[in-house]
Amino acid sequence: MLSGGLDSATALAIARSEGFGAYAISFRYGQRHSIELESARNVAGAIGVEQHLIVDIDLRSVGGSALTDNIDVPRDRTAEDLSAGIPVTYVPARNTIFLSLALAFAEVLEAGDLFLGANAIDYSGYPDCRPEYLRAFEALANLATRAAVEGRRLRVHAPLLERGKGEIVRLAIDLGVDLAQTLSCYDPTPAGAPCGACDACVLRRRGFEDAGVPDPGNLPPDRGRG
Amino acid sequence: MLSGGLDSATALAIARSEGFGAYAISFRYGQRHSIELESARNVAGAIGVEQHLIVDIDLRSVGGSALTDNIDVPRDRTAEDLSAGIPVTYVPARNTIFLSLALAFAEVLEAGDLFLGANAIDYSGYPDCRPEYLRAFEALANLATRAAVEGRRLRVHAPLLERGKGEIVRLAIDLGVDLAQTLSCYDPTPAGAPCGACDACVLRRRGFEDAGVPDPGNLPPDRGRG
Repeated sequence: MLSGGLDSATALAIARSEGFGAYAISFRYGQRHSIELESARNVAGAIGVEQHLIVDIDLRSVGGSALTDNIDVPRDRTAEDLSAGIPVTYVPARNTIFLSLALAFAEVLEAGDLFLGANAIDYSGYPDCRPEYLRAFEALANLATRAAVEGRRLRVHAPLLERGKGEIVRLAIDLGVDLAQTLSCYDPTPAGAPCGACDACVLRRRGFEDAGVPDPGNLPPDRGRG
Repeated sequence: MLSGGLDSATALAIARSEGFGAYAISFRYGQRHSIELESARNVAGAIGVEQHLIVDIDLRSVGGSALTDNIDVPRDRTAEDLSAGIPVTYVPARNTIFLSLALAFAEVLEAGDLFLGANAIDYSGYPDCRPEYLRAFEALANLATRAAVEGRRLRVHAPLLERGKGEIVRLAIDLGVDLAQTLSCYDPTPAGAPCGACDACVLRRRGFEDAGVPDPGNLPPDRGRG
């Protein structure tokens, strides 16, 4: 599962470094930051995938999130804010929906390994990024499909789940991920410049600060790109 | 979850008879039988729902099924054929995808009860209609959402799971479901006449035969409707 952000790009690079041939899946779901799909395309091309599938799914009709509705994306939240519960950028059941579609794609490909960049350390407090959630999805996946009936096991890999953002940045650099291609913003400008203030931008900035390296991508408009 | 077929219409009627206010969700997923959505609309109107949401999702891009690809839908299969494994009409991970979207809708509505017409007796051998699968989805749902974090429980109701088709027909009649409005065909004509020969038509015919009543809907073209 590839959004085009720092985490999913790094998860893809990990899968490749472990010798997996990779198929990427992304979603055009009515997100205000659909420009992230261009980052996803660039990342998929640079790291190398057999196929990059983009699935259309209208989550705007379901609603309930600042990422798909006309609700303002919170800005400049502190570390305390970030740990204070589920924010309005949470999209109802999004990871369950995306994982289900990735499961369908895996089933068509007869693939047995599913990678995602979920992270439960420096994250926005989404319920569907927690380890127990991912274990439950893996259990479901192993009952849901033709492979399950035929006794082939599916594994859900979330190699970044227990890593801090700084560690993820260093890992990405070690793996040669071109971080200039990644975009981690919930509310970029139409030209794709990150806002620099949403939770995703804040967490990303903290990651690069922790790693002690400058961010070659995701620069706020007044510092480049825009 | 309402497809417009016999089972989901009956599951909706059961929910209403148990005193639930109902919200229906249907999917335009690239199915060759998208005319079933008209049946779903009629059924929702007749039984009475607060809202009927139809979500667009492009499962054709994922592929892997006779219901979304240019693969022939099998015809006139026998009871033996039906129990011989997963047929080509199986859509990879379809129930997981649909349940995920229903879960998202439930989360937005703050609803705690999710009804579907899954059936594991007279069915097509789909892995995602089995009791253990539905239990696993309920477990996942209770980790996946805001409600889960806040301690509110979600229940997945599949009241037809262990019932034969004949029993379902009798139950639908007892509950006053207008079965003439329902359509249970994988490959209807453009005008919405069922083919009479796909697994769904075969199972439905068997149900009405078992119940000892004529089918007021789902008639093959040469016997009406078309």
